[in-house]
Amino acid sequence: MSVRHINPEGLHRNPGFSQAVVVERPAKTIYIGGQNGVGPDGKVVGDTVAEQAGQALRNLATVLESEGAGLANIVHWTIAVVDGHALDDGFAAFQKAWDPADPPPAITVHVVAGLGPGFLVEIDAVAVV
Amino acid sequence: MSVRHINPEGLHRNPGFSQAVVVERPAKTIYIGGQNGVGPDGKVVGDTVAEQAGQALRNLATVLESEGAGLANIVHWTIAVVDGHALDDGFAAFQKAWDPADPPPAITVHVVAGLGPGFLVEIDAVAVV
Amino acid sequence: MSVRHINPEGLHRNPGFSQAVVVERPAKTIYIGGQNGVGPDGKVVGDTVAEQAGQALRNLATVLESEGAGLANIVHWTIAVVDGHALDDGFAAFQKAWDPADPPPAITVHVVAGLGPGFLVEIDAVAVV
Repeated sequence: MSVRHINPEGLHRNPGFSQAVVVERPAKTIYIGGQNGVGPDGKVVGDTVAEQAGQALRNLATVLESEGAGLANIVHWTIAVVDGHALDDGFAAFQKAWDPADPPPAITVHVVAGLGPGFLVEIDAVAVV
Repeated sequence: MSVRHINPEGLHRNPGFSQAVVVERPAKTIYIGGQNGVGPDGKVVGDTVAEQAGQALRNLATVLESEGAGLANIVHWTIAVVDGHALDDGFAAFQKAWDPADPPPAITVHVVAGLGPGFLVEIDAVAVV
Repeated sequence: MSVRHINPEGLHRNPGFSQAVVVERPAKTIYIGGQNGVGPDGKVVGDTVAEQAGQALRNLATVLESEGAGLANIVHWTIAVVDGHALDDGFAAFQKAWDPADPPPAITVHVVAGLGPGFLVEIDAVAVV
């Protein structure tokens, strides 16, 4: 397998994401559904984006670890935050969970009108191994 | 090809979706654009999420059948519902269309401010065969 | 590699998108994060959807050209426009950037409550080469 995180000349650079990720010959591709700030009991863990994003990231890690992978295998993710809540708090949760030695995924960020009941943030992802 | 629907230990389980789907050696990957409640004539079929979601699911099935596949081949889908309309009605439409013997796809659900004119729900999908 | 843009019988046809795109044996798959109307200096280029969509499309082209590809290699894209701004202006920008001889990608369009600060439109994409 080959995975290259690219930031071509002529595009702005940001430490929080790669402009694109190029994948060749993946052994497997993992499509992870939107993860929320939900614990193993199905309950929402808190009422802030920071708490919920932290839990959503732990859920993503749990999925990936079950396949012998980790957050660093994510090539693209979409982060949806409910309108009126701070995107920055989600970014702070990312910085806590992410090893800065790993090149970050390509990212899409939408501020949405809502999510499922009680959810403030949802993160889905494609990962390759 | 190999497709595994996974629900790792430590994550909440829900009959409506899989936490992730792992794909190895797909013969083909089908990227299906957002399907709406639009009939063959291009007209919106009704003004409820239930009607529109039912038609969007039929459109997804039509796309997949043209490739010798079906809804069960979907590995991830994103469902967008316009703010103020019930997510539950979309879920009921899914339950009607989905064979409960098939493990469900990974899912992302966003409540959006709007969609194209007259649309209340949009479903895009990635399927593998 | 094989890429087929399909518009099965029974679905409405629209010159602006394909209903689905079928990919077999891609040499590489490029996951491009959400591109905005941001220039090389990281600044937003204008305060209209038309200007920002034009720049986002140029950014997508820059990413693809760095991999020996072009817009025609996009198989699916998601276009998010902030509520209150005209989708049509984004479509006009697409028509300027897109070679009508190329079959268009599968498309998802969401009207969102917001995007990052100052952004009116965001386009992410999956491309195959």
